[in-house]
Amino acid sequence: MAEIVEVTDPSDPRLRDYVDLRDVQLRKLLESERGVFIAEGEKVVRRALESGHQARSFLMAPRWLDALSDVLATTDAPVYVMSEAAIEGVTGFHVHRGALASLDRRPLMSVEEVLAGARRVVVAEDLVDHTNIGAVFRSAAALGFDAVILSPRCADPLYRRAIKVAMGSVFWLPYARVDDWYAFPDLLRGLGWTSLAMTLAEDARDLREVAASNLGDKVAVMVGSEGDGLSPHWTRSADVRVTVPMAAGIDSLNVAAATAVACWALGAPRSG
Amino acid sequence: MAEIVEVTDPSDPRLRDYVDLRDVQLRKLLESERGVFIAEGEKVVRRALESGHQARSFLMAPRWLDALSDVLATTDAPVYVMSEAAIEGVTGFHVHRGALASLDRRPLMSVEEVLAGARRVVVAEDLVDHTNIGAVFRSAAALGFDAVILSPRCADPLYRRAIKVAMGSVFWLPYARVDDWYAFPDLLRGLGWTSLAMTLAEDARDLREVAASNLGDKVAVMVGSEGDGLSPHWTRSADVRVTVPMAAGIDSLNVAAATAVACWALGAPRSG
Repeated sequence: MAEIVEVTDPSDPRLRDYVDLRDVQLRKLLESERGVFIAEGEKVVRRALESGHQARSFLMAPRWLDALSDVLATTDAPVYVMSEAAIEGVTGFHVHRGALASLDRRPLMSVEEVLAGARRVVVAEDLVDHTNIGAVFRSAAALGFDAVILSPRCADPLYRRAIKVAMGSVFWLPYARVDDWYAFPDLLRGLGWTSLAMTLAEDARDLREVAASNLGDKVAVMVGSEGDGLSPHWTRSADVRVTVPMAAGIDSLNVAAATAVACWALGAPRSG
Repeated sequence: MAEIVEVTDPSDPRLRDYVDLRDVQLRKLLESERGVFIAEGEKVVRRALESGHQARSFLMAPRWLDALSDVLATTDAPVYVMSEAAIEGVTGFHVHRGALASLDRRPLMSVEEVLAGARRVVVAEDLVDHTNIGAVFRSAAALGFDAVILSPRCADPLYRRAIKVAMGSVFWLPYARVDDWYAFPDLLRGLGWTSLAMTLAEDARDLREVAASNLGDKVAVMVGSEGDGLSPHWTRSADVRVTVPMAAGIDSLNVAAATAVACWALGAPRSG
């Protein structure tokens, strides 16, 4: 059973995992040094614990204690309780859904481990926006994909904003980070995967046609960065170049929307 | 040809259209009172003018003058030029893509006018998040939908953030706002439209099956708010209740992702 600890001073050192949650640069440094991540909101905190992550502590206003009493009963981590105004003094903003938790990061799986258990994966190249990373996880999870592979420069899926947009799917959908960006397309091919590069290139094949073709058992959908799309190297190295046909004069779908459409079209057949 | 005016004082009254761009409540009031909206970034400013909106003025750092010289040649509105630091003093934040424009809002089209020219529309109910509104416009435009209809409580598509996420598609994709929320499903039906309610209800039909069926000539896809989804009234009143089948244990797609998938699956057949 978690111990309830009333705290009044926003500078209390026991709250140091929760400081300045809107300062992205500071948070990146702090969270990687300490090996922690922050879950925000009752539903997300609940999912973090249910998916087996170890809590270091909680921080919440008194009114959230009841809503979370069942999950707090399963942990020994301290629950720091403060007024909402005082919490804002720690975090630097008004925490809309009241409850926060600081949790231990687990060791990352390797790319090979993640691929070994999967048949449909999204591969994200250099998505630097936490909202987009979260949206990719949420769509992949909802539409029956098994895992996400991240290029070295992709943003952290366990950053607070990404977790929130992903509705916690980052806690249980397996993911890994590519070490060798250059060699990755060959690694995929060597493991028997068919790679699909999502691109606006004129010679790319229509997603409808590709989805109706025989792609083999293991399919990797590669989506590129917000600005420039997939790199020339990954685009050229993929087995198939695929496009979502657009209305005349439109640049492109947002990468999160394109990922949702591709996952829908290419997902393993669903029953029911 | 636009006149170039150097300005140094961030409190100069000629800059009053650009103040405090991050203060959502203030901006809502100010923009509706003055009948203006703000375009941000070279590409979006360009599209606002190309789509025929009248500029009141521009505000930019010197280095953006060249990039926009062709469009500035087409307008008589003044171009206020300041250092990037001084612009930040006006707007309250660092304007990443340098250029801003203040433009006149045009009279809204009526729902009947918008529907008269369309065969595929997205109907958004109570989407209060500007990012989601922008994403819905961008996906609808890219995937061949003809228009967007907004419920009375939807956020403003001409709000800066929505415009940016929509990549300017709000400038040319027709849209209208429903006056009578309660009567709207009947209005749609009376005009010969088939309405599809996107819902998680257990008795809803699978999107794949619905997309393969004969829906008639005019199809309206109704999507609901971020928190609660579509209202019971609109859900019950629709001709067909439709669901995107989800992997076990997943709540739902984000509304922007669900809209992209629905537009992809239900769009008018594309050539090429």
